[in-house]
Amino acid sequence: VCIIDQRFLPHEFVVERMTSVEEVCRAISEMRVRGAGLIGAAAGYGIYLATRNAHPHRIKEDLEKAAQQLISTRPTARNLAWAVERQLDELSSCETLDECQSRSLATARCIADEDASFCQRIGEHGKKIIEEIAAKKSGKPVNILTHCNAGWLAFVDYGSATAPIYAAHAAGIPVHVWVDETRPWLQGARLTAWELSQQGVPCTLISDNTGGHLMQHGMVDLVLVGTDRTTRRGDVANKIGTYLKALAAFDNHIPFYVALPSSTFDWSITDGLHSIPIEQRGADEVLYVAGKTDRGEMERVLIAQEGTPCANYGFDVTPARLISGLITERGITPAREADILSLYPEFA
Amino acid sequence: VCIIDQRFLPHEFVVERMTSVEEVCRAISEMRVRGAGLIGAAAGYGIYLATRNAHPHRIKEDLEKAAQQLISTRPTARNLAWAVERQLDELSSCETLDECQSRSLATARCIADEDASFCQRIGEHGKKIIEEIAAKKSGKPVNILTHCNAGWLAFVDYGSATAPIYAAHAAGIPVHVWVDETRPWLQGARLTAWELSQQGVPCTLISDNTGGHLMQHGMVDLVLVGTDRTTRRGDVANKIGTYLKALAAFDNHIPFYVALPSSTFDWSITDGLHSIPIEQRGADEVLYVAGKTDRGEMERVLIAQEGTPCANYGFDVTPARLISGLITERGITPAREADILSLYPEFA
Repeated sequence: VCIIDQRFLPHEFVVERMTSVEEVCRAISEMRVRGAGLIGAAAGYGIYLATRNAHPHRIKEDLEKAAQQLISTRPTARNLAWAVERQLDELSSCETLDECQSRSLATARCIADEDASFCQRIGEHGKKIIEEIAAKKSGKPVNILTHCNAGWLAFVDYGSATAPIYAAHAAGIPVHVWVDETRPWLQGARLTAWELSQQGVPCTLISDNTGGHLMQHGMVDLVLVGTDRTTRRGDVANKIGTYLKALAAFDNHIPFYVALPSSTFDWSITDGLHSIPIEQRGADEVLYVAGKTDRGEMERVLIAQEGTPCANYGFDVTPARLISGLITERGITPAREADILSLYPEFA
Repeated sequence: VCIIDQRFLPHEFVVERMTSVEEVCRAISEMRVRGAGLIGAAAGYGIYLATRNAHPHRIKEDLEKAAQQLISTRPTARNLAWAVERQLDELSSCETLDECQSRSLATARCIADEDASFCQRIGEHGKKIIEEIAAKKSGKPVNILTHCNAGWLAFVDYGSATAPIYAAHAAGIPVHVWVDETRPWLQGARLTAWELSQQGVPCTLISDNTGGHLMQHGMVDLVLVGTDRTTRRGDVANKIGTYLKALAAFDNHIPFYVALPSSTFDWSITDGLHSIPIEQRGADEVLYVAGKTDRGEMERVLIAQEGTPCANYGFDVTPARLISGLITERGITPAREADILSLYPEFA
């Protein structure tokens, strides 16, 4: 199983080969792979690698241990648990290790393929929102603000929040993206801006503080973000800072949409603010910034006095009341339980 | 005239001597000195240096040129123009260069002393707000969130937003400060966290994205910020991102106060959103982050692909409707024109 180590993008393109579930866990917790869909897909392959290394007489125990290891790497992310549960379900009826291995490989591939096809459909549905805005802008670009990276680097392909942008761009609709740099990990600066420029989509990098000002001055037509866990009434946990942009969009009457494959729904919870666990990460991600020096070397720099106490919450929850709609692979729905369940009646 | 070059803090303490208004202008525009009160004080001394270098037969022209140079360095800041106008007023009746020099030196000293004494009074008034919150927290620390640096580094002494914190801390009230790192220039990480720790005030550094989450979870009791220009109805232009924190405070019913010496009022304008010019700075402040490498050297690192387009707005406007009150040297007032003018009747 090969991954792009995202810690070095956009400066270096490093591919890493993984042969055990422990390596997959490390890759997920160190954010070598990150993004809702991608860590789901990685977890699927993680279970497959666990079947390859399982003891023939302890298959069930070994797989359950692997499942726990995978799920605990990133507590907020729903796709991770979803992919692991799906694998365990599939494997529950397998009797031999051989059967486990072939079934889990097929399931891992299916999870990955489904992720790509769901994102493609999100793109088609979301494109209509951009089209409608474009129709009122007489040829001027539609200005879209996004936070973090919910692009093809965060999924198997297309991305969630970026899929409608890529679909609109491919259809010749002029778009321009404001990219939040997304501290502390800088997913926007390092990944989204690079991804968009690889696709030829015009974009401008901004500090996370900037979006409110742009919205106050009519420079944003649409906010489009992803989500790492979505409750049945449509509260979303996304990268820390998303809630602040949702407040600003609401205050300035700007549509705020969340794009998601249904694998990020956590059907067991309603109130995101009180039920979604928020991952806390190390102080070093706040205290140090990594990048390329003027000599072309990768280096990290300390931005505050050494030993400064830091808090590093990875996500915040945007309540459904601030969300204009959810863009799913089955279509667009208001962020309201009844509407969501009419798209997904199997979870009603 | 000596300044601390704030670009190198907290890693290096560099003092620079300035002998001309051009050097003062460069120091202000390159943010070697920054902060509402401090650039006002620096501009006062800038005019004094201009009198020392003025041609005896062209005093008026030379001083007006210096005034224009100083005012144009940072377009959003009100204190700058206020200090320069005050100097020109004082000097309008001077007849000789000698008289100009001694009068402008006295005025520059007066501006600086007044700034410190105003900040001290802001501290006394603002302390009461913290005291009232502390009374309901049964010994637990009052959690205060601040954005950017409105501390003694930004003023001649005490600071505006930090003055109430220092006054409360000195009075034995337990306080803890959440410090927004304040991208792109990192005033919070580099200056505020360092300043607070120098004063022994407990603080925790956070990315600018974090405040909303903290407020949703009851971890912030009070937001306290400074301002660079304040309209007569109480709209404030402060460091970019302040508006987002004001929205989150409002959404979570958390008091949001702005501390200011009256020198930041622009009595000529009412609507901040449409009347306050917002400074735009270079892309490099967004694209590069400066700090200390693991080898102990000051270095800058590129955080995105080279050549990525960036926008860098220095300030945003927080409308009066989101502000619980203004803490001035004359007392605390609601952010409403009639109330502000009853504290400052001379501008009614």
